[in-house]
Amino acid sequence: MINKDSLTHHISAQFNAELEEVRSHLLAMGGLVEKQVNDAVTALIDADSGLAQQVREIDDQINQMERNIDEECIRILARRQPAASDLRLIISISKSVIDLERIGDEATKIAKRAIELCENGESPRGYVEVRHIGDQVRKMVQESLDAFARFDADLALSVAKYDKTIDREYKTALRELVTYMMEDPRSITRVLSIIWVLRSLERIGDHARNIAELVIYLVRGTDVKHLGLARMEEEVKGTADKG
Amino acid sequence: MINKDSLTHHISAQFNAELEEVRSHLLAMGGLVEKQVNDAVTALIDADSGLAQQVREIDDQINQMERNIDEECIRILARRQPAASDLRLIISISKSVIDLERIGDEATKIAKRAIELCENGESPRGYVEVRHIGDQVRKMVQESLDAFARFDADLALSVAKYDKTIDREYKTALRELVTYMMEDPRSITRVLSIIWVLRSLERIGDHARNIAELVIYLVRGTDVKHLGLARMEEEVKGTADKG
Repeated sequence: MINKDSLTHHISAQFNAELEEVRSHLLAMGGLVEKQVNDAVTALIDADSGLAQQVREIDDQINQMERNIDEECIRILARRQPAASDLRLIISISKSVIDLERIGDEATKIAKRAIELCENGESPRGYVEVRHIGDQVRKMVQESLDAFARFDADLALSVAKYDKTIDREYKTALRELVTYMMEDPRSITRVLSIIWVLRSLERIGDHARNIAELVIYLVRGTDVKHLGLARMEEEVKGTADKG
Repeated sequence: MINKDSLTHHISAQFNAELEEVRSHLLAMGGLVEKQVNDAVTALIDADSGLAQQVREIDDQINQMERNIDEECIRILARRQPAASDLRLIISISKSVIDLERIGDEATKIAKRAIELCENGESPRGYVEVRHIGDQVRKMVQESLDAFARFDADLALSVAKYDKTIDREYKTALRELVTYMMEDPRSITRVLSIIWVLRSLERIGDHARNIAELVIYLVRGTDVKHLGLARMEEEVKGTADKG
């Protein structure tokens, strides 16, 4: 099992600094992405098209961060030829960055829908659900990043588990909105905008879960993707120390 | 610039064989994923719930292929410490595999909708669009893999460009289906199933584009993600030989 301390024991202090740096870049990107999710949802709820526009503009910054972190990871792989937990760290970072970028994309999509709804008039339904599910997935993103920062496999496991709750609430919200569309077909376009937003939020939850799985891989050394929650829990709680 | 021959000039014949093997595993996974897309769309069009069920079952195989290829890539990184074009090959493979797995997921989602529609009765609209867009994205997946197999940056560029066509056709189809739902609110649930399918197909196009971008990175050595099609074309057509 690895932890923060195991990062401070390299022959090369320079290598150490490089690993610490790329990790801090990932966390900084994560912080910005989390803010984007929050701002996009707020823009939608408050019908604030200025804030929505800002979210769309910041997306370029996130894309640039992804490119930079990717380059850092490749440079470290080429020059330092990391092994064991260092290699796992680089692999986890270079994969997490893909999920973070996609979370950023989903936030941008939500911002676009917010602008649409400012123009077409509010949806008659769905804002309570967007606020509620939005808060929860933002928290999932935050906790998956905290788990990364602290090498905390238990927190990562709880994020992965929470994804099931999101999926359930998403489905319930969807059913209600479909029923509403049938009752009031004139609202279809606006309600559909909300449905797309909920879909984006559900996807954000999936990406947070992916990041959480990468944290478990990083800390425990086992690829838990597709293993199911029960097996994942065994890996995290198990006494086997494979780091 | 790299090509098939540059893979055959390693000091270690064993290393060479390992690279060839992981690449062939990626292409085999790609072939299966492409078949899944085709079968899922066929199951929907022909209302064949047996075929849809088969698509859902095969998804586990794809997930297992992803795990195996991932392990191979990590093993090669740890033991062989590849550099230059070998490193780019491993990075491209380990990222492409993520996109292939997600294409597989989307195929499974389409299969689920096919089963739903078998149970709820056909949608009154949208099958022509699903067939048409489905054929095109299946071809995109196929060509992105052909580009990978042949180190063909020009073919990869044409795949990336084609994604714009898919996005346009997807939006047109969506508008028509929304109009139809307003005219016949009783059809909303079934038409929505078709809308989700179109959404999945559009996402498959995005993933094929991602793979195409990774082929350009592999062959040209430049990360063309987020660069836009004009810059991407410059990189592919440019005379600069960076391999």
